[in-house]
Amino acid sequence: MTVVPGVATADSVAIRGASCPERSVVRGRPPVLPPPAAHGDYRDTQAIPNGGNTIMTMTTTSTAPMLETHPAPIGIDRAQLAATIDTIVMCSQACTMCADACLSEEMVGPLKTCITRDLDCADICATTARVLSRHTGFDIAIARSQLEACVIACMSCGAECAMHADMHEHCRVCAEACSRCERACRELLATLR
Amino acid sequence: MTVVPGVATADSVAIRGASCPERSVVRGRPPVLPPPAAHGDYRDTQAIPNGGNTIMTMTTTSTAPMLETHPAPIGIDRAQLAATIDTIVMCSQACTMCADACLSEEMVGPLKTCITRDLDCADICATTARVLSRHTGFDIAIARSQLEACVIACMSCGAECAMHADMHEHCRVCAEACSRCERACRELLATLR
Amino acid sequence: MTVVPGVATADSVAIRGASCPERSVVRGRPPVLPPPAAHGDYRDTQAIPNGGNTIMTMTTTSTAPMLETHPAPIGIDRAQLAATIDTIVMCSQACTMCADACLSEEMVGPLKTCITRDLDCADICATTARVLSRHTGFDIAIARSQLEACVIACMSCGAECAMHADMHEHCRVCAEACSRCERACRELLATLR
Amino acid sequence: MTVVPGVATADSVAIRGASCPERSVVRGRPPVLPPPAAHGDYRDTQAIPNGGNTIMTMTTTSTAPMLETHPAPIGIDRAQLAATIDTIVMCSQACTMCADACLSEEMVGPLKTCITRDLDCADICATTARVLSRHTGFDIAIARSQLEACVIACMSCGAECAMHADMHEHCRVCAEACSRCERACRELLATLR
Repeated sequence: MTVVPGVATADSVAIRGASCPERSVVRGRPPVLPPPAAHGDYRDTQAIPNGGNTIMTMTTTSTAPMLETHPAPIGIDRAQLAATIDTIVMCSQACTMCADACLSEEMVGPLKTCITRDLDCADICATTARVLSRHTGFDIAIARSQLEACVIACMSCGAECAMHADMHEHCRVCAEACSRCERACRELLATLR
Repeated sequence: MTVVPGVATADSVAIRGASCPERSVVRGRPPVLPPPAAHGDYRDTQAIPNGGNTIMTMTTTSTAPMLETHPAPIGIDRAQLAATIDTIVMCSQACTMCADACLSEEMVGPLKTCITRDLDCADICATTARVLSRHTGFDIAIARSQLEACVIACMSCGAECAMHADMHEHCRVCAEACSRCERACRELLATLR
Repeated sequence: MTVVPGVATADSVAIRGASCPERSVVRGRPPVLPPPAAHGDYRDTQAIPNGGNTIMTMTTTSTAPMLETHPAPIGIDRAQLAATIDTIVMCSQACTMCADACLSEEMVGPLKTCITRDLDCADICATTARVLSRHTGFDIAIARSQLEACVIACMSCGAECAMHADMHEHCRVCAEACSRCERACRELLATLR
Repeated sequence: MTVVPGVATADSVAIRGASCPERSVVRGRPPVLPPPAAHGDYRDTQAIPNGGNTIMTMTTTSTAPMLETHPAPIGIDRAQLAATIDTIVMCSQACTMCADACLSEEMVGPLKTCITRDLDCADICATTARVLSRHTGFDIAIARSQLEACVIACMSCGAECAMHADMHEHCRVCAEACSRCERACRELLATLR
């Protein structure tokens, strides 16, 4: 059993893989936040098992409620859009951290390209999320071209990170984030015409 | 019972308030992701009840795993740091969307200041999250001053949004995000010396 | 004769149009910075006449010297690249300011789309400039797709601003910045294969 | 005589130091742009001698005209504000390029801290310039705290770059940009109360 140090609390224990006994019990039920603590209720990030080798964590997001209450007509499925934006935002964050983690490795030489890809992908994802968040006079041509740039950046960054995934866990996690983001952008692109 | 349209799936139903029967059953257990769907597994955002008036949603984040695997020594509790970064990132996203939602309202006049605060807070939060994500030669003076700017931006933006919370749900949600972010930044600041 | 208030100094007077007597004298000579003042030598921005209706100003940039001294091979003409990056950076800045100036106008209603285009174009330009600034493992596919998104954003934003150019001088200036940026990106794209 | 390759044209020759014969002739006259070329008029960047060891270049900016035409009351000298914003924007750009140039050096080890400072300073400057560009409901507390963070980032980044200035010309140029930016921010801060 592997626990993410520091994330585990009385209400939230992160467990790796299939050894989690509660797993079958709550499978298929909605994830439920423990009641907010009396203080420290900003700790919105929670570790969760995902049945595999990776510890997944989740964080509170307002993207879906914000889109739900947006007064403008939005010609895209709002739930898919909210999920896509969050995935892109979190990919940007993963790339920023992977660049820094690579830079901290003892042997930076083989990671130079990875750092550059991470920095490019972080900026491109951040901008793409913002473009997708604005619907007052939404311009589908801008959204499409920026999404296409995002797909290309995620492909390139994900491929580079994957080459170092065996050596560096942060590259493996970042490659996963890029892959999720690439797919989310492609699926959204398919609905934008 | 209020369901966030489109977010609800067979595995994840968002329910407002106390009417959720599973709530007591799983209280105290770790939140568990439903098994990934055969396709569309990028839909990482999930609606969750929080026992109050607000539908909360969560999204997958790699921030905690990325920090866990960072090779540099980090003189801050990594779990708190990861949670704080995610809270700041999501506040930035909420502010970007609130600015756009305000701009889409019929009466923009009373929301002009709110839009400006949202845009400032979005940029300041985005930069603060990045500064906190870099630990290769971490400079505590930079981190502290940027965190202080973030606290002030969140206070100002949150107060402005709160003034429109009764009229505009997006302002209410954004005010909450700013408030969470402000507290998270203050608590992190208290540990940075 | 129209002078940009505050920018004019004993060493640098901004004059509109053909009435500048020094113009023929120094035509063809390199522009020369006045000797730095004893203090306040940070005032790197200078107003210059451009023979037409617009007061142009210039600011000190390090982009060309930075690219000149970059140790990596760069398969693009460095002077063109530096000029393009600066044009993109300054377009981003113009768009940020146009969005805010539009928001300050008494009648915001007709400017809502313009504000959104400005915000999108500001973010896209900022990211494009950063991508073009990184040459450690330069990925031409990323650069091309981000440049294409930049061209589309500048076209769209420039066209929207041009519709308000008669009413709002800031929209006219921003439309010019977008037009210059669009052309610079197109010319750079033509050299990237 | 050192010419910046590619930037020099018939109308604009960059010459290092005191060997420029035209210097005394045009000293004290306003810098004048050569007439726009028939095509390629996007090449807004020009190399200029500054009487010392550094080739300075200038680029067209719309910041001053944009601020001049801003409809809101702005309680700051608009010319100083415009010059400060441009200096901050260009410092951000220099830092982005210095981070990449450092990463391209053969020996990255001693430059790790410099890269991190550059990335932080680039983000902080970019955000500071945006905050200073928004005057629809300007919040002086936000502006002041973000300017203070910018001063600290520029001090820290400039000091780190200065340590590598003898070895790496890009670090020397970036240190100068940070120093100019720090002073500009301090002078603006002194006027903001």
